[in-house]
Amino acid sequence: MKYLNQHEAISVDEELFNEYKFSVDQLMELAGLSCAHVINDCYGSPQSTVKRKVLVCCGPGNNGGDGLVAARHLKLMNFDAHVYYPKRTEKDLFINLQHQCESMGITVSKDCPTLEWVEGEFGLIVDALFGFSFKPPVRESFAPIMDVLNKSKVPIVSVDIPSGWHVEEGPQDECNIQPDCLISLTAPKLCAKKLTNAKHYLGGRFVPPKLQDKYAMELPTYEGNNLFVKLS
Amino acid sequence: MKYLNQHEAISVDEELFNEYKFSVDQLMELAGLSCAHVINDCYGSPQSTVKRKVLVCCGPGNNGGDGLVAARHLKLMNFDAHVYYPKRTEKDLFINLQHQCESMGITVSKDCPTLEWVEGEFGLIVDALFGFSFKPPVRESFAPIMDVLNKSKVPIVSVDIPSGWHVEEGPQDECNIQPDCLISLTAPKLCAKKLTNAKHYLGGRFVPPKLQDKYAMELPTYEGNNLFVKLS
Repeated sequence: MKYLNQHEAISVDEELFNEYKFSVDQLMELAGLSCAHVINDCYGSPQSTVKRKVLVCCGPGNNGGDGLVAARHLKLMNFDAHVYYPKRTEKDLFINLQHQCESMGITVSKDCPTLEWVEGEFGLIVDALFGFSFKPPVRESFAPIMDVLNKSKVPIVSVDIPSGWHVEEGPQDECNIQPDCLISLTAPKLCAKKLTNAKHYLGGRFVPPKLQDKYAMELPTYEGNNLFVKLS
Repeated sequence: MKYLNQHEAISVDEELFNEYKFSVDQLMELAGLSCAHVINDCYGSPQSTVKRKVLVCCGPGNNGGDGLVAARHLKLMNFDAHVYYPKRTEKDLFINLQHQCESMGITVSKDCPTLEWVEGEFGLIVDALFGFSFKPPVRESFAPIMDVLNKSKVPIVSVDIPSGWHVEEGPQDECNIQPDCLISLTAPKLCAKKLTNAKHYLGGRFVPPKLQDKYAMELPTYEGNNLFVKLS
């Protein structure tokens, strides 16, 4: 299986929208749903000792949108989701995704959670801050939440890219979060090779075969109705 | 569990879009995906003797859109989908759903399949012609495909409503297709009580709890990551 560089990841994304005519609504729904399924599979079993209260940290772009979708589906799967979503856009889709969360009883807050509150309250953190278009360094307004993620002992599930990591080179000196689980979407990016002791899943079962071939992705087979594949 | 009348079904749908601010893209993707999952579960096992070539009949409205989405996901699950989609709209979403199918190698045709071809070629028919807003009688342009569905021995999976049935009263004298499987979306409609010897599934795992309560739906519990529940 191929690990995409940043340029390839951006190109694949553009082709899905421009050539294959998917809407952001469609693919974000499928991506966020696959994240919720991985989380439910990994941490949601009745035997799991992980608390079902989940902090979902959503960034300003599409990675954050995946997080908002995941939060909604997690709520329907009896997780207690709390969303931190500090920097919002005026795009209808994002306003509506937030509204959908709130009308299902999910709090969507601009207040950065403290380390103490996170450690005391949550069983899991979903990191949906930055995705494959991120370039370091992290902007100052996100420094407080990155500090919480860096210091917290609560397991982190990163959506597509561990936030703050370079998409190709991985952890940076100042941003070195270590997710317990990474959910690569569409295809893994190069930084996923720098994971240590993390579960790694692939989600986003929507890539047209012709596009897989064009980028020589060699994706693994999704079994049955699964929306994800466990890679390691 | 409650079976909705036509007025309730229309109201629930309107609330999902107007109050909960879902887009058609989002809910159609989830609905169509749940249909593909039911079909894969029911007919897609390696032990199944049903041929994996599926005729997906898509009507002019949202029921047809669910069919187009299901066809695309079925293709990704190694079913060989062929779409009959005679009456198309100018809406971007539908143009794009058709394009997505075609760019995955699915033929989308306006030519009504003959009974002989259907019987010889296909292992399954997905009936996504008319949904919960249908009122009999069937328009003349759909008479040929309804005739095929009425006469064919190939198992039919109906999406939300067996096409041609009255949403509340069920089979009509002139339209009395007998699906092998019905996938009710969101909540079953009254006509589902008139099924005989059919499998019955519920899909569309996206109904906000407050909306479920408002309509006293008393939906069954979706287990694990399943996007459907088997009702009978």
